[in-house]
Amino acid sequence: MSEDGATMLGRASAIPASPEEAVLDRVRDPHAAIRYAVRFVAPEFTSLCPVTGQPDFAHLVIDYVPREWLVESKSLKLYLASFRNHGAFHEECTVSIARRLVDRLEPEWLRIGGYWYPRGGIPIDVFYQTGPAPEGIWIPDQGVPPYRGRG
Amino acid sequence: MSEDGATMLGRASAIPASPEEAVLDRVRDPHAAIRYAVRFVAPEFTSLCPVTGQPDFAHLVIDYVPREWLVESKSLKLYLASFRNHGAFHEECTVSIARRLVDRLEPEWLRIGGYWYPRGGIPIDVFYQTGPAPEGIWIPDQGVPPYRGRG
Amino acid sequence: MSEDGATMLGRASAIPASPEEAVLDRVRDPHAAIRYAVRFVAPEFTSLCPVTGQPDFAHLVIDYVPREWLVESKSLKLYLASFRNHGAFHEECTVSIARRLVDRLEPEWLRIGGYWYPRGGIPIDVFYQTGPAPEGIWIPDQGVPPYRGRG
Amino acid sequence: MSEDGATMLGRASAIPASPEEAVLDRVRDPHAAIRYAVRFVAPEFTSLCPVTGQPDFAHLVIDYVPREWLVESKSLKLYLASFRNHGAFHEECTVSIARRLVDRLEPEWLRIGGYWYPRGGIPIDVFYQTGPAPEGIWIPDQGVPPYRGRG
Amino acid sequence: MSEDGATMLGRASAIPASPEEAVLDRVRDPHAAIRYAVRFVAPEFTSLCPVTGQPDFAHLVIDYVPREWLVESKSLKLYLASFRNHGAFHEECTVSIARRLVDRLEPEWLRIGGYWYPRGGIPIDVFYQTGPAPEGIWIPDQGVPPYRGRG
Amino acid sequence: MSEDGATMLGRASAIPASPEEAVLDRVRDPHAAIRYAVRFVAPEFTSLCPVTGQPDFAHLVIDYVPREWLVESKSLKLYLASFRNHGAFHEECTVSIARRLVDRLEPEWLRIGGYWYPRGGIPIDVFYQTGPAPEGIWIPDQGVPPYRGRG
Amino acid sequence: MSEDGATMLGRASAIPASPEEAVLDRVRDPHAAIRYAVRFVAPEFTSLCPVTGQPDFAHLVIDYVPREWLVESKSLKLYLASFRNHGAFHEECTVSIARRLVDRLEPEWLRIGGYWYPRGGIPIDVFYQTGPAPEGIWIPDQGVPPYRGRG
Amino acid sequence: MSEDGATMLGRASAIPASPEEAVLDRVRDPHAAIRYAVRFVAPEFTSLCPVTGQPDFAHLVIDYVPREWLVESKSLKLYLASFRNHGAFHEECTVSIARRLVDRLEPEWLRIGGYWYPRGGIPIDVFYQTGPAPEGIWIPDQGVPPYRGRG
Amino acid sequence: MSEDGATMLGRASAIPASPEEAVLDRVRDPHAAIRYAVRFVAPEFTSLCPVTGQPDFAHLVIDYVPREWLVESKSLKLYLASFRNHGAFHEECTVSIARRLVDRLEPEWLRIGGYWYPRGGIPIDVFYQTGPAPEGIWIPDQGVPPYRGRG
Amino acid sequence: MSEDGATMLGRASAIPASPEEAVLDRVRDPHAAIRYAVRFVAPEFTSLCPVTGQPDFAHLVIDYVPREWLVESKSLKLYLASFRNHGAFHEECTVSIARRLVDRLEPEWLRIGGYWYPRGGIPIDVFYQTGPAPEGIWIPDQGVPPYRGRG
Ligand SMILES: [Ca+2]
Ligand SMILES: [Ca+2]
Ligand SMILES: [Ca+2]
Ligand SMILES: [Ca+2]
Ligand SMILES: [Ca+2]
Ligand SMILES: [Ca+2]
Ligand SMILES: [Ca+2]
Ligand SMILES: [Ca+2]
Ligand SMILES: [Ca+2]
Ligand SMILES: [Ca+2]
Ligand SMILES: [Ca+2]
Ligand SMILES: [Ca+2]
Ligand SMILES: [Ca+2]
Ligand SMILES: [Ca+2]
Ligand SMILES: [Ca+2]
Ligand SMILES: [Ca+2]
Repeated sequence: MSEDGATMLGRASAIPASPEEAVLDRVRDPHAAIRYAVRFVAPEFTSLCPVTGQPDFAHLVIDYVPREWLVESKSLKLYLASFRNHGAFHEECTVSIARRLVDRLEPEWLRIGGYWYPRGGIPIDVFYQTGPAPEGIWIPDQGVPPYRGRG
Repeated sequence: MSEDGATMLGRASAIPASPEEAVLDRVRDPHAAIRYAVRFVAPEFTSLCPVTGQPDFAHLVIDYVPREWLVESKSLKLYLASFRNHGAFHEECTVSIARRLVDRLEPEWLRIGGYWYPRGGIPIDVFYQTGPAPEGIWIPDQGVPPYRGRG
Repeated sequence: MSEDGATMLGRASAIPASPEEAVLDRVRDPHAAIRYAVRFVAPEFTSLCPVTGQPDFAHLVIDYVPREWLVESKSLKLYLASFRNHGAFHEECTVSIARRLVDRLEPEWLRIGGYWYPRGGIPIDVFYQTGPAPEGIWIPDQGVPPYRGRG
Repeated sequence: MSEDGATMLGRASAIPASPEEAVLDRVRDPHAAIRYAVRFVAPEFTSLCPVTGQPDFAHLVIDYVPREWLVESKSLKLYLASFRNHGAFHEECTVSIARRLVDRLEPEWLRIGGYWYPRGGIPIDVFYQTGPAPEGIWIPDQGVPPYRGRG
Repeated sequence: MSEDGATMLGRASAIPASPEEAVLDRVRDPHAAIRYAVRFVAPEFTSLCPVTGQPDFAHLVIDYVPREWLVESKSLKLYLASFRNHGAFHEECTVSIARRLVDRLEPEWLRIGGYWYPRGGIPIDVFYQTGPAPEGIWIPDQGVPPYRGRG
Repeated sequence: MSEDGATMLGRASAIPASPEEAVLDRVRDPHAAIRYAVRFVAPEFTSLCPVTGQPDFAHLVIDYVPREWLVESKSLKLYLASFRNHGAFHEECTVSIARRLVDRLEPEWLRIGGYWYPRGGIPIDVFYQTGPAPEGIWIPDQGVPPYRGRG
Repeated sequence: MSEDGATMLGRASAIPASPEEAVLDRVRDPHAAIRYAVRFVAPEFTSLCPVTGQPDFAHLVIDYVPREWLVESKSLKLYLASFRNHGAFHEECTVSIARRLVDRLEPEWLRIGGYWYPRGGIPIDVFYQTGPAPEGIWIPDQGVPPYRGRG
Repeated sequence: MSEDGATMLGRASAIPASPEEAVLDRVRDPHAAIRYAVRFVAPEFTSLCPVTGQPDFAHLVIDYVPREWLVESKSLKLYLASFRNHGAFHEECTVSIARRLVDRLEPEWLRIGGYWYPRGGIPIDVFYQTGPAPEGIWIPDQGVPPYRGRG
Repeated sequence: MSEDGATMLGRASAIPASPEEAVLDRVRDPHAAIRYAVRFVAPEFTSLCPVTGQPDFAHLVIDYVPREWLVESKSLKLYLASFRNHGAFHEECTVSIARRLVDRLEPEWLRIGGYWYPRGGIPIDVFYQTGPAPEGIWIPDQGVPPYRGRG
Repeated sequence: MSEDGATMLGRASAIPASPEEAVLDRVRDPHAAIRYAVRFVAPEFTSLCPVTGQPDFAHLVIDYVPREWLVESKSLKLYLASFRNHGAFHEECTVSIARRLVDRLEPEWLRIGGYWYPRGGIPIDVFYQTGPAPEGIWIPDQGVPPYRGRG
């Protein structure tokens, strides 16, 4: 790994005050000539409801096919943590995370699944990808089990 | 089976307007001299929140050790359906169902588990029994899986 | 979010007396230029059998690809609750909910799965979509486990 | 619902003595202009082995895309029950049920999965459909878990 | 194995017309001096509802601690199959099977769990044992997962 | 329900700045003479690591046997949300929540399970109860599946 | 069923000494004009390692689309049992079973999954089919869960 | 490890022709003064039916509390493999394995669960222990899921 | 937390060369007067076989009831990592980890479950505790699912 | 099997000091003319983080379609074990293993899934294949369940 990724790994870092202040680091893909996919699962995501100010929680799964850059995993963690005191609707928040990663990584392709905890008995899931899955790349199903209530 | 149980089985019946109006039928236990346990699972239970008027849903599991009487299963179904337009808090509602059955059936022992769907991200479960499980009777765990959010 | 959505969020509201009386609110898609899918899971749905008057229960999963409008989630909840005292056959009810959403949201595409609780030992599932899933949009399987009886 | 369906719903009926004697009722599809799929799960199916006379058991899942007609669900239940004293090999029995439904309902498409309980340590599953799944209709996987022996 | 057990194993046999006509064979416990438990699982049990004549299905689990006799497994299978055309209520049927085995085997202890398929949305489970589980014998939980409806 | 519980239900409320500022409301147990247990599951709990400032997440399960008072569920939700910007070690945090509830509710008995998300590949679970489970009250296992890594 | 199939069903038969000596019986497909698929699951398969002589175990799943012939299930069971004292490598053994069935049944298509128990901590699975799945025939996933080690 | 245990580990060995010919090696418990339990799971067990000669399969779980001796694991594997061509009834076979281990290891306590694959649709499980579980030793449940048929 | 615990948290540390060289840090229990239990799950444990030198893997679960001291979690992680190049038999290794913790923490009680990956098709589990679980403390089952082979 | 594969099977071998020193043996595909797929699951993989030196763990699944050569399974095991003291980033390590196998086996096609244990609460999965799955070959989903945190 290269650039700022290696310097961040192993240090404790403060949570950025907002998504805008968070810095997404990237490192050069050591296999830039090879097409493959990477998945991150973030079951520890929380933000605030912009109307009521109440906490929201989500289980996020992000798949992407890098071109030149990989996301540095610790900076990704801090970026996601920066939503902790940030107000955002479910649909908007999920898509925004994807768009931020796309802007920074310029990947061949990216997909996000946002699996939000229920509100009023009804959870919302948001499914976004930048376009059709690229030919010849293997992208397994995210396979998050559906919400089922009780029983 | 005997008394009004046999007459009710196989007929369509109107949902009683309230739990008070519902009639719980009982039939003589054909094995009155034998001590055993019976379990009913009612995953289709709904009532109303007495403060907001919004629907509540629960998965109920009832275990009992009959003495002289069994509950007639169709009247039990109608009794549970009678909560449909009835306002009740989770704790109160669950215990009340148990007490009504105890009054009617005079069982050796009765247990109810009320597994309510989450409100505000937090489900409530209510666990009631009339006393220690009777010696020598087999009462398996209800085994309802815990609520787990998403992911 | 905009229009009547924001005003409704956080207020208690009465259950509409029938689906016809229920108002489905919509809010502008903040990412109208981006194609993505949204899923709602409603495990707390109940209606009445039009022949016997007995309660029916279903687990509903709705996926859609918005064009200009998102459904406001609280009004969706109230719309679904409005079937509580409404008689409808399984097939008809499931498809009607889809059609009502399509009329109001004019989405690019919509799918509904209605997973009904068993009657007579046999559950009915209803699967409807407005047409082939749109190219390049990711629509995960609904993944509701099949009914399995006991054991 | 119409025709004989509505009259049968809510009445107890005798099990037909054989599949031939069973009457499959149909009702008009209230959404005849709309293409969708319906699934029935029958985990309570039993027939007899034509060689040994021993009982066989199966878990059946039937998916179909109606054209003009829906199967009336109670008559379907009685039709399946009519195999109780009927001898049939697994492969033949499963396909015959599909063909009988096709003859009566003239659906756009039909699929059956017959998941038979093991004999001699080896279960047989039978998978039949009338042709390729119709374009643009959503037919989820039946998702019956495979037999696994013990452990 | 001894007595009629060995003669029956490997032959096809007709289903007895009723439980009364079924013969339960027993064989001498080869480890009569040793105290241990045996479990049979019968997921292929069916009988008839004595009121409506409709088929009922159950998943049965039987545990016992033999004294001098083991049940011959093929005769047990035929005995259970003899309920196929026999009318019996859930509670009565389950306890009767236990009592018949107790009379024939004179075991140190016996337990039966009858896990019946739902009727009217509500399954009944029946749990019977002849008395407290004997000291020092290992009787694992039957561990049949609870009924859960849909979703 | 009584006292401030009923007034809070249905209103949006600000997250308290710290656990100390949070107010735990209580309502009179409508069945004060009856001994039963109540379970809350809070899968949306988050606090901060007091050393690194990084977010921690936990799945909390709280069981208690009320004497005179029930906890008002919305105030419980806000109390738990007040840890959002609060630094606390896993063991201390879990036990503190239990002690605060004990002080306010004076229950007959209380148990908490804190199931924390892994750090350094190793999750910590904390199990506390105020004393032996009271005789004759039914307290089911919390049944949270163990952490299992991948695969 | 016809030919030797019907004569074998219900008789005990000796295990053939080797796969070569085993006779695979076939019976005419009663629905020869209809295209469908059949699945056999054999979780009780064992052979010997040709190098060490140690037992190997596999869970086999076989799917095929018959043309004129069905395999007689008891002869299939005996054929599989004939590997009991036979040495074979995992890849070779799995493919050979498929080829033997293809030679005997001349099916439209056949698939085998051989899920071998781990050796040295690493299980081998072998996946073979005679060609692309035939158009318009429904072949569900075999759905055998992946090996997962412990935890 | 000591005695013949260390010499056997890492060598390929022939399967003994019968249980009688198999040699069970033992090694000194390195913690002879400490009381603990050891579990072996053998999902690859097979023997022959003494009446029909057909193969039988079982999933075995053995727990024991050693006193002076541990069983050498490779010799245990070979001992279990020696049943491959040995005829034995389920109950007898399971108990015999336990007794052989008891004779050789003289443990403080031993338990075996034999979970046999179904025959005639009905599996047999055999549960044996040498006496009550010793005080103060932790013996977790074997937790083998019950047989469930299909669906 | 106090002593060296707080200084270690957040720093990268080298893996100790052997268990003997690893230092187990302890911190004062902030609730020393309160009796509760703590669980660590370590699914990433590996050591070497002392005979063959091959890697072994285990899933470890450790429960303890602290008296005055808690184990500092990062030093526990490093201690467990120190077995990476250390040879140890399964039984000995598991018990040794427990004894080392007992020596350092002087807990009221401690339990360890070592769930080892299979060798030769047979996994070994080791269950040790320092004595009977202390009265009135809640120690949930470790609930690690049993090894099951394939299928 | 041929070449050095047969000679290695059954012997204990030292772990190679690095991936470079490890020798990947290959054996001739006995079915070279037949196109099929082979899967290896390696749940016991561990390497070191190149920045912190801390151990990393992964669950690896490798699928390939052999042309002329099969990988000899014991040499694969040793090759994977050679990463034990080797530093490698997740993405790089996973792809390198695939490339090494491709160079040695010259398969028609190869896929690898690397399912890494979480770091900082976020696991990384890496999905690589050499190109589109070959037409007409059956490659089942790897089906590794997604990481889910706690609860
Ligand atoms: Ca690249
Ligand atoms: Ca009684
Ligand atoms: Ca849009
Ligand atoms: Ca139509
Ligand atoms: Ca098994
Ligand atoms: Ca005995
Ligand atoms: Ca449900
Ligand atoms: Ca009270
Ligand atoms: Ca694992
Ligand atoms: Ca054909
Ligand atoms: Ca000892
Ligand atoms: Ca079943
Ligand atoms: Ca303490
Ligand atoms: Ca198996
Ligand atoms: Ca080839
Ligand atoms: Ca979670």
